[in-house]
Amino acid sequence: MMDRNDLPTSEVDVLIVGAGPAGLMSNLWLSVFKGLRVRIIDKRTSDVVAGQADGLVGRTQEVFHSFGFEDRILKIAQPMAEFSFWEPNDSGRLHRSSRTPDGVPNVSRFQGSVLHQGHIEKFLKDAARDRGGQEVEHGIQPDLLEIDESKVDEVDSYPITVRLRRLSKEESTPSQFGHAVANGLYRSANFMTAKEEDRAIEKSAEPQDHEVIKCKYLLGCDGAHSWIRRQMGAQMEGDQTDFVWGVLDIIPQTDFPDIRSRCAIQSLNHGSLMVVPRENELVRLYIQLEEFERDAYGRVDRRRISPAQILQAAQKIIAPYTLEYSHCDWFTAYQIGQRVSTSYAKSDRIFILGDACHTHSPKAGQGMNVSLMDAYNLGWKIAHVLRGWAGRSILSTYESERRPVAQELIRFDQKWSALFSGQLKKIERAADGTELEEFKQTFENAKLFVAGITVQYGPSQLVGQILDHKNVHFNPPSVGMGNQDLAKGIPIGMRFASHRVLNQADMRSWHLQDTLPSDGLWRLLVFAGRMTDPTQRPRVLQLAHSLSSPSSILNTYTSGGRSLFEVITVHSGPRIDVELSDFPPPLREKYEYNKIFVDDHSYSEPFGNAYENYGVDAVRGCLVLVRPDQYVSWIGNLEDMAGLEAFCSGFLQK
Amino acid sequence: MMDRNDLPTSEVDVLIVGAGPAGLMSNLWLSVFKGLRVRIIDKRTSDVVAGQADGLVGRTQEVFHSFGFEDRILKIAQPMAEFSFWEPNDSGRLHRSSRTPDGVPNVSRFQGSVLHQGHIEKFLKDAARDRGGQEVEHGIQPDLLEIDESKVDEVDSYPITVRLRRLSKEESTPSQFGHAVANGLYRSANFMTAKEEDRAIEKSAEPQDHEVIKCKYLLGCDGAHSWIRRQMGAQMEGDQTDFVWGVLDIIPQTDFPDIRSRCAIQSLNHGSLMVVPRENELVRLYIQLEEFERDAYGRVDRRRISPAQILQAAQKIIAPYTLEYSHCDWFTAYQIGQRVSTSYAKSDRIFILGDACHTHSPKAGQGMNVSLMDAYNLGWKIAHVLRGWAGRSILSTYESERRPVAQELIRFDQKWSALFSGQLKKIERAADGTELEEFKQTFENAKLFVAGITVQYGPSQLVGQILDHKNVHFNPPSVGMGNQDLAKGIPIGMRFASHRVLNQADMRSWHLQDTLPSDGLWRLLVFAGRMTDPTQRPRVLQLAHSLSSPSSILNTYTSGGRSLFEVITVHSGPRIDVELSDFPPPLREKYEYNKIFVDDHSYSEPFGNAYENYGVDAVRGCLVLVRPDQYVSWIGNLEDMAGLEAFCSGFLQK
Repeated sequence: MMDRNDLPTSEVDVLIVGAGPAGLMSNLWLSVFKGLRVRIIDKRTSDVVAGQADGLVGRTQEVFHSFGFEDRILKIAQPMAEFSFWEPNDSGRLHRSSRTPDGVPNVSRFQGSVLHQGHIEKFLKDAARDRGGQEVEHGIQPDLLEIDESKVDEVDSYPITVRLRRLSKEESTPSQFGHAVANGLYRSANFMTAKEEDRAIEKSAEPQDHEVIKCKYLLGCDGAHSWIRRQMGAQMEGDQTDFVWGVLDIIPQTDFPDIRSRCAIQSLNHGSLMVVPRENELVRLYIQLEEFERDAYGRVDRRRISPAQILQAAQKIIAPYTLEYSHCDWFTAYQIGQRVSTSYAKSDRIFILGDACHTHSPKAGQGMNVSLMDAYNLGWKIAHVLRGWAGRSILSTYESERRPVAQELIRFDQKWSALFSGQLKKIERAADGTELEEFKQTFENAKLFVAGITVQYGPSQLVGQILDHKNVHFNPPSVGMGNQDLAKGIPIGMRFASHRVLNQADMRSWHLQDTLPSDGLWRLLVFAGRMTDPTQRPRVLQLAHSLSSPSSILNTYTSGGRSLFEVITVHSGPRIDVELSDFPPPLREKYEYNKIFVDDHSYSEPFGNAYENYGVDAVRGCLVLVRPDQYVSWIGNLEDMAGLEAFCSGFLQK
Repeated sequence: MMDRNDLPTSEVDVLIVGAGPAGLMSNLWLSVFKGLRVRIIDKRTSDVVAGQADGLVGRTQEVFHSFGFEDRILKIAQPMAEFSFWEPNDSGRLHRSSRTPDGVPNVSRFQGSVLHQGHIEKFLKDAARDRGGQEVEHGIQPDLLEIDESKVDEVDSYPITVRLRRLSKEESTPSQFGHAVANGLYRSANFMTAKEEDRAIEKSAEPQDHEVIKCKYLLGCDGAHSWIRRQMGAQMEGDQTDFVWGVLDIIPQTDFPDIRSRCAIQSLNHGSLMVVPRENELVRLYIQLEEFERDAYGRVDRRRISPAQILQAAQKIIAPYTLEYSHCDWFTAYQIGQRVSTSYAKSDRIFILGDACHTHSPKAGQGMNVSLMDAYNLGWKIAHVLRGWAGRSILSTYESERRPVAQELIRFDQKWSALFSGQLKKIERAADGTELEEFKQTFENAKLFVAGITVQYGPSQLVGQILDHKNVHFNPPSVGMGNQDLAKGIPIGMRFASHRVLNQADMRSWHLQDTLPSDGLWRLLVFAGRMTDPTQRPRVLQLAHSLSSPSSILNTYTSGGRSLFEVITVHSGPRIDVELSDFPPPLREKYEYNKIFVDDHSYSEPFGNAYENYGVDAVRGCLVLVRPDQYVSWIGNLEDMAGLEAFCSGFLQK
């Protein structure tokens, strides 16, 4: 198909197509595993400077922290503290009917926040650059893709061939559709067909604009119209609603009192509005648009959408309060389409991530977060295979772990969006405010889900235990869970939650999650229990002895002489009755001071009460194996070396 | 004196000599007041890359936060959590006799920390650059200084003439005295005479190396041998002890268990040692050196001091534990000289700051902090005079406020150092450990002082009220303090302490001190009391009315149309019974969302209990005037406009 002889050809391990959040997170994650050959291309010439996504849930910020740049988020993002509900009172006048915390306090140490996507993309790029990672190449698009199926199972082969085309400046600069204000109409999947988006590709290009890349893995992070998804032959399954929403990023001038709080405003006759305060003085408004004619396919003519028209709709909803703006930073409009791709991968060589595999309403602030977590799930697995640490079979867990998350998100979004879009308005409105009550109940139930911390991956090579219900962290099972019983607050398949512990060496208070940085290592957390108990100390010493054996997982799975595992120990105190020297190698090597932690009171920070929160027996402790992405793989007793080794041998390679 | 015709001559508002912490803080602070012409010169060619100061107390970090870069400190500094005391037990073997929190938890929201001076200087430079401030000019030294006393009282005159000389690379690169390891021997005032330090100046230089600067103000931030101090004719008063201390910055290899904790180790026969864990894996050791011959002046020959010799002394003290190092980053030695300059200023045109006016032992970690705070005290005052906002008379408060701080530091340091240097060893050592007990008691008493938050400036034009005892914040006076009675937890003359409040507009939790950024403005904090009380609301409305009057301080003292004052309001709640619209201008102008705060519970952060902590009546409130450097000037009732205006007219100019 490709005239390869005529074109410059090169090889890389991974080609990433699309430098939005999913692409940039993939690039960052791969940069952690030094020496991989990666390229990342994007068809746009420039960075995102306004609009697009902005929500950052607690879990995403935990991951940013694990890469070391959450401090930059905290400095400028707007945390969401409270959510207010506004509806007409008995006389039909808009009033604040209730307020609720925005999120569940303290399930994550990071509060849900809002920050313009451009900042986040910059931080992801900087973090990759700090690790010697790849720079984004702009204005480049793939236009031909081949996969040699006969080679996909050969680990070191390059079965994928992609032809790339360098775009002209006109092609790669998105049209503003005649508007002076930056907008996202060109990105709104339902206002634009894939055909329209592909138009640039169809233009004939001179041969000198082309090159050929042969790669081992191809990541399609190329958005809702994903060209790579279409080459894979996957379909987006799901529905589209009739509701059209406008989005305005403005510096508002209003006498509405809660303009700096997240609000849901339901009007009597003009639909609803959501207020999301942003960094600086910006506010994002999601506004239901009611009065648009549709074309034969039910699509709204995007040329009829302008900031003035969206503002007018907002004014009707927020009346009698006034609303104008001094500056409009960005606007867009969209129809809610709730769809998930039929597959996430082809031959476990080509993968799609982010908007390329799921689309939904932006109003729950999930899109960018789920996209980032797709990439955070996949990146380390590909790196493990490329480095020869694990077999290719682990790659199938990307789809098995992430597609259910998207499906659950769609289910959530359907309920959330329907309520928001006032679908219930058609039903007789109950005098007692049933509608808003249902909305509020949905909201309360959604808070944990929305924080991103309820995701639970099912059993696989990488996750050792079946749990048959959700939210086990908050409703711990009491019986019959095997190893899970050793640590009921550390649900297998969920992210390792953080509680405060003290560093035995210097008495500093740490979040235990800070011992799990995104550096590619697996962690064996040793809950050593009570070292002063005469029956427990020998168990810990025996564990250290077993882990020191040449056949232990620490010494079996290594790379360049370094173990793929780090051991972190947390004992249950009291701190002052225990010394660092009580912990022999490999729990603590000579001159190591950040390996031994204790569940004890701090002078200045709140007590973490870690053993109780993790549900671990304070005397006997347990072992917890945590993946490079902070998800819990396996839990066992201090003696259960055989179980641990068997588990690891299921996917790791010597 | 100066042959001005031959030399290039220019004018600046402020010339800063010396780009250490005091000079860089002066430069940063002046950069806040846009448009001032500043130059900052330093005789060294390069930045500090190792060693020197490292302690950062809570108050200093509050100030860094007010300039917006404390996040950079928090990310890399080593917080000091615990202080351990080690001494011989009854059998003479070293053991840990006790542990205590290092600092008083929660008196400042920032914990005492340690970070290499080079980082801090970089952050100060970056912060100045962000504000369009001046870059440091390296390799330049003043060599002639004249002041025209006939012009010092003319506000806009340039009474100071300074000749500058550009140094050769050899002159400006400090000698390492033959050592391969970076060291600070050349800086140790007692190991080197001013004469030696001046030698470079005495070399004749070609005329093309010279220029002449005429300036309004000259800041001598030029260290312990300050050339400017000597030109002023000021003397260093005080004593020098015989004790010689060595300092090592090393990555240690030791089995001493508390090497990552701050420790005081007193040996039986070999003096004492202090351990200060540093950022990364570094540890700083302060080691008493006993075996040095002195010259006729009691000075040790610095050429005899080497890292190996210092290490040997440390090994004797820390035995039976072993101590080696894998890397020595820096070392120095010093004799403790405790001295304060006889004056801090000449004609309120030339000022000296930092080490130029006070020297003492480094072991309490105060040096860099007090130097920074000298500059933080002086900078805004000079800027106020240069901008015409205040009369020159406020400049005398620099010496009256800062010299007592240095004197108190010396008193503290004398006791601290004497104990540390084992002066008491000569006295029969009590079997019950009296010596260490006294040390520990001194330590306990010192904690508040050491945090930098007990500094209290006496009455002046800028501070309205006499308090006749210290630590009023922790032992509030109960009677007879006039306006102070309205807010017993806000001691006049001390820095405004921070407690958490909520933003009325968005429910975010703020530290109230965050409403006092270092932007050069004065703040009128309106404790509005209980807005739902029918007697209180009219008082608040009347206050707003008074402040709106053309003759109010807000409208009297302006610059470029902007008031020199910002009004911040804190009411006592409940939050949900009060709306933003309850606060008329100037308490809150239209579309302002960060002006009104409330003392109420947060969903996610601890309750600040601000009214109770500040000792303000929850119904009636009060007014608090805070200086641009966060020190409390004046407290009055909501009706006391006349008192407030009279106070401000004492130093501000229309």
